[in-house]
Amino acid sequence: MTNTFGKFFRITSFGESHGPALGVIIDNCPPNMELGEDDIQAELDRRKPGQSDITTPRKEADKCEILSGVFEGKTTGTAIAVIVRNQNQKSKDYSNIKDVFRPSHADFGYFSKYGIRDYRGGGRSSARETIARVIGGAVAKKILKQKFPDFDIYGFTRSIGTDYFENIDKNYIEKNSLRMADENMFENTLEKVKKIRDTGDSIGGTVEIRVERPPVGLGMPVFGKLEADLAHAMMSVPAVKGFEIGEGFSLSEKIGSKSNDPFVSDENIHTKRNANGGILGGISTGDDIWFRVAIKATSSISKPQKSVNEKGEEVDLVVTGRHDPILLPRAVPILESMTALVILDHVMMDGAQNKLL
Amino acid sequence: MTNTFGKFFRITSFGESHGPALGVIIDNCPPNMELGEDDIQAELDRRKPGQSDITTPRKEADKCEILSGVFEGKTTGTAIAVIVRNQNQKSKDYSNIKDVFRPSHADFGYFSKYGIRDYRGGGRSSARETIARVIGGAVAKKILKQKFPDFDIYGFTRSIGTDYFENIDKNYIEKNSLRMADENMFENTLEKVKKIRDTGDSIGGTVEIRVERPPVGLGMPVFGKLEADLAHAMMSVPAVKGFEIGEGFSLSEKIGSKSNDPFVSDENIHTKRNANGGILGGISTGDDIWFRVAIKATSSISKPQKSVNEKGEEVDLVVTGRHDPILLPRAVPILESMTALVILDHVMMDGAQNKLL
Amino acid sequence: MTNTFGKFFRITSFGESHGPALGVIIDNCPPNMELGEDDIQAELDRRKPGQSDITTPRKEADKCEILSGVFEGKTTGTAIAVIVRNQNQKSKDYSNIKDVFRPSHADFGYFSKYGIRDYRGGGRSSARETIARVIGGAVAKKILKQKFPDFDIYGFTRSIGTDYFENIDKNYIEKNSLRMADENMFENTLEKVKKIRDTGDSIGGTVEIRVERPPVGLGMPVFGKLEADLAHAMMSVPAVKGFEIGEGFSLSEKIGSKSNDPFVSDENIHTKRNANGGILGGISTGDDIWFRVAIKATSSISKPQKSVNEKGEEVDLVVTGRHDPILLPRAVPILESMTALVILDHVMMDGAQNKLL
Amino acid sequence: MTNTFGKFFRITSFGESHGPALGVIIDNCPPNMELGEDDIQAELDRRKPGQSDITTPRKEADKCEILSGVFEGKTTGTAIAVIVRNQNQKSKDYSNIKDVFRPSHADFGYFSKYGIRDYRGGGRSSARETIARVIGGAVAKKILKQKFPDFDIYGFTRSIGTDYFENIDKNYIEKNSLRMADENMFENTLEKVKKIRDTGDSIGGTVEIRVERPPVGLGMPVFGKLEADLAHAMMSVPAVKGFEIGEGFSLSEKIGSKSNDPFVSDENIHTKRNANGGILGGISTGDDIWFRVAIKATSSISKPQKSVNEKGEEVDLVVTGRHDPILLPRAVPILESMTALVILDHVMMDGAQNKLL
Repeated sequence: MTNTFGKFFRITSFGESHGPALGVIIDNCPPNMELGEDDIQAELDRRKPGQSDITTPRKEADKCEILSGVFEGKTTGTAIAVIVRNQNQKSKDYSNIKDVFRPSHADFGYFSKYGIRDYRGGGRSSARETIARVIGGAVAKKILKQKFPDFDIYGFTRSIGTDYFENIDKNYIEKNSLRMADENMFENTLEKVKKIRDTGDSIGGTVEIRVERPPVGLGMPVFGKLEADLAHAMMSVPAVKGFEIGEGFSLSEKIGSKSNDPFVSDENIHTKRNANGGILGGISTGDDIWFRVAIKATSSISKPQKSVNEKGEEVDLVVTGRHDPILLPRAVPILESMTALVILDHVMMDGAQNKLL
Repeated sequence: MTNTFGKFFRITSFGESHGPALGVIIDNCPPNMELGEDDIQAELDRRKPGQSDITTPRKEADKCEILSGVFEGKTTGTAIAVIVRNQNQKSKDYSNIKDVFRPSHADFGYFSKYGIRDYRGGGRSSARETIARVIGGAVAKKILKQKFPDFDIYGFTRSIGTDYFENIDKNYIEKNSLRMADENMFENTLEKVKKIRDTGDSIGGTVEIRVERPPVGLGMPVFGKLEADLAHAMMSVPAVKGFEIGEGFSLSEKIGSKSNDPFVSDENIHTKRNANGGILGGISTGDDIWFRVAIKATSSISKPQKSVNEKGEEVDLVVTGRHDPILLPRAVPILESMTALVILDHVMMDGAQNKLL
Repeated sequence: MTNTFGKFFRITSFGESHGPALGVIIDNCPPNMELGEDDIQAELDRRKPGQSDITTPRKEADKCEILSGVFEGKTTGTAIAVIVRNQNQKSKDYSNIKDVFRPSHADFGYFSKYGIRDYRGGGRSSARETIARVIGGAVAKKILKQKFPDFDIYGFTRSIGTDYFENIDKNYIEKNSLRMADENMFENTLEKVKKIRDTGDSIGGTVEIRVERPPVGLGMPVFGKLEADLAHAMMSVPAVKGFEIGEGFSLSEKIGSKSNDPFVSDENIHTKRNANGGILGGISTGDDIWFRVAIKATSSISKPQKSVNEKGEEVDLVVTGRHDPILLPRAVPILESMTALVILDHVMMDGAQNKLL
Repeated sequence: MTNTFGKFFRITSFGESHGPALGVIIDNCPPNMELGEDDIQAELDRRKPGQSDITTPRKEADKCEILSGVFEGKTTGTAIAVIVRNQNQKSKDYSNIKDVFRPSHADFGYFSKYGIRDYRGGGRSSARETIARVIGGAVAKKILKQKFPDFDIYGFTRSIGTDYFENIDKNYIEKNSLRMADENMFENTLEKVKKIRDTGDSIGGTVEIRVERPPVGLGMPVFGKLEADLAHAMMSVPAVKGFEIGEGFSLSEKIGSKSNDPFVSDENIHTKRNANGGILGGISTGDDIWFRVAIKATSSISKPQKSVNEKGEEVDLVVTGRHDPILLPRAVPILESMTALVILDHVMMDGAQNKLL
């Protein structure tokens, strides 16, 4: 459903870019787990604006407040509600875009569907809604870490434009403003991104997510396949245009004898090269889960553009305000969060069915 | 949920490759629509085995029987159940794969999850489960055509291996055994596929789906985005490894001023090049919807392979039986069906909310 | 949703009174449990027609066939589908009720809603749909017994007309045709029922359901309360007009100091008189769960009645065919089944959340 | 699901009695409808404490704040979030009940289920959660009134203790502190209730809900029956112990020729005495919908009671604080709200299926 994600561990989200607040209700969190605003704030800070000179300087502290579900520092098992007040609520004049459909934005669809739209910052279609996802993800991550001490989820910028970054140094990711995992490529790439930004333009790329040491047996047959739920989760994030699990599109170019990935056995049974991204037939094999997500360039650019208004008249448009010249670094915690939600949901459902008798 | 797809227009599926029957229950079909087994059979025949010399010669008539929901040739508005009996149920000796995990099959995951598996033809993980999808899709297509006379959904083989086929001749698709839309490329490609088949190997590729003249306003904010539901639908189909909407991954390689797609207005407002695949911010714009799906090579190949058995011992494996050397032609009606289910579900939900007052 | 019941352990049902077959798909059954048609048939036989001279003599063997989800006698964890073919499909002339709205039947509502109705035996509104419930309930009961060896669910006829039967002898229930639990009252009551039957009339009453030794902690806050799910389950059964948990309506007549039921402690903590039916605040306390269900008299009576036809003209109506003069005995296994489905669903959900960390 | 109610028009609720705030997210509200805090506040004021000398004098303004989904005074079609801050949050010493299970409260179940409980005012099990229901109901009522100008939902106190009030004067209900519809009985009854209050005791009764001029055709076959959804809705409200539709339990005492309710035709087709409460076979007939709900006496009484603590030791308990001596007057707007939510949900679903082609 539109504002709810998950089947058993579920989040329900609300909020617009320039409304009073955004927030989320989290269902079915296990009880008696320590949880405080700090746990959540740490993840929110990873997605908030103004982290570096290549993220939007919109001033938002994004401070969260827990409204329910936690008592004396512990979860009670009941609905956890968390909100974030918008600070930057009334600062801007939107008259230039009020009746214009910005290129590659959601404006036109929302207006056609509902006959009304909150044009301030995109309203409900703004990526500020991802605050709710990150809050839910922070809780899901904490539960998963507690359940599976060796488990980890992390994401990083795998490519920008046509530049693909080979190396993966997990420890480097949080140390650079592009959330790249390849230190050698960083300086050069940052220069390129800054140049694009300075021309009033933006750039896209891909984010890769990796789930280390997941339990085997997550996912369900037919419509509950783990990769299907992950695809749904990722494609629901603003600006995402593609998803591939494991070798994905390039796997499909191969002949079967090359694309097939034999099982081998050492400490345990696993696949030789993990070509399928840790999932076969919709069910996790215990191999690391990995997938890539395509994210387009920020559509709000300050270069002059053509578009049309509500009357169908052609207009010249300059989107003012400063926006992220690249969405990927801030997308990383969002996509990680969605991954954590999917994984935890399947852990719970797998337990409900398969740990019962 | 695992066996149910859709939020309001829903199908619930059952059945294994070598069990007595497969089938589906369809919820919330509009009443008083003419519906017979012929309507469904026509689509089932497009996916059934043995259509040509590059599809598996497994003998299955795949004859459907309507068990409920239709009275005197018309839908009653209540649950429609349709089953297909398996004919080829007991024909084979499975002792060679009974305790072996076939490379890139679902065997290992199912066994690890459930501690038991129906190894005959893959059981529930077999692509024979897609019979249920095609039945549901046949009903959905019929409803959509009745509601929107100009509307159409079609799919075709867009690439095989690394060969990409530029031209789209919609009328050619059903006239060739590869369901390609590019007549000039067909003969050559068929030769290539036959050669691969003759070596006991298989090949993958991409299918493209197009929805012509969809209504504007389908899809819902945040988690109900149309592309997210389409991604979920497509990634739930066996052997699918990737999904991209519109220009997808290649769109993400561009700078914003190139990837942005301005609105223009002639007869109506639309985007200039439909780069985003007919969906912006999760909501259809009225432009044609188009996306691509990566399908890996058939994992059942007759070339000898290595794998391991349940004890973790390495084994040499030859998968006997003849399988499709390429899944794409038969995948086309399956992916079309899933598309129809998503579109109709959103048409109904959009109506429920936005045509009420 | 209309044809699906349950949140995690779910059944999806189809079928009409005089269509080819009825059946059910069961989701998320634990794997590796022995299950055969015999397990299901035993429960179906408890609800089938023709059990005694006060049940309808309609000839239906109600033989079930498992179509999926069981392999070599054990559940595989995947969708279990079971069907029952209708034998009595074409035996009758319905011209006298084809366009008449029978008093207290579903005819008028279905026709008004859908503009079409399957008038043969009531179509989808026939109580034959409860076959699907009993199949699902048989599986749920088997799982519950395996999980909780001391656990039991049973129902019995608590009152008929204005006669209330005080004693509860659990072992007597399956030994009498009225499924009463009070042996002293049986003979007399049977005579009364036969007299009513012989005048072409029918009679209603109440069924009481008891769940012995349920686990504590089933049910969820607010909308997931156990009594709310039980009420939904019971009120969805044809002819049910009321539900009360524990002392129910009579509890509401008391002052607080009389209706309150103090906790006491001996072997374990429990309530003194179990006035609230084993549930407080929506969550099971470990006390036996008990509730009552009001079932109206069979509306198909052979006495002449007045009604109207589709044109609004008044008609004299005699409903032919022989029907149960009292629904309660056959309702017992149906209501038990719905109870088992609710309890198992909550056992699974409680485990998913509260046995995780 | 535990915090979400409804299938298409849905509310998701959070909040505890003594946490920072309670609130609700409303999904799928039609767009472009005028909506302000005043619309909601009017209904909240009907349920808030301190309305008269027979409601709890807890000081709570229950002022609502809309956080999303409304733009320039109109609904946008996206998630509507509304919260109410608790004012009375830290005022009390709970040491006397902190480890005691109050008779007929939720304490014991919550503690057994979750191993932790927010004992302040009952936490999540407090009837303060019904604020979320009333907010959702206020929006649902507004939509229904706009769609069906003649439509109305109202409730009233039908009985208190063993006193049943025959007359129904709809206009009198909001003019008396007991929300009775029978003016002749009011003074006497009020005296009785005050006497019970003055002894530190409480009293229960029944509320009747009536839906005037509902559309025909609401409700769905089998598990989606309108009375089943209403029963679920009502039984999920704190202190509700029973539900009966139409003549309910007393209908079940009759023989078929008396309980059957023939159709008659004048301006339109309807039933003669509306014995079944406006619903037959799960589908509304267009007759007024009516049902009764049993509500037990407030379990928080100031008379000394026995109970046990977490260690199983017997304790003498006096519940301090002043509570409603009768829950029924404040229950009326809550039960109306739940009714409105069910009806609107079915209006939308009926439209989605039956107004499509």
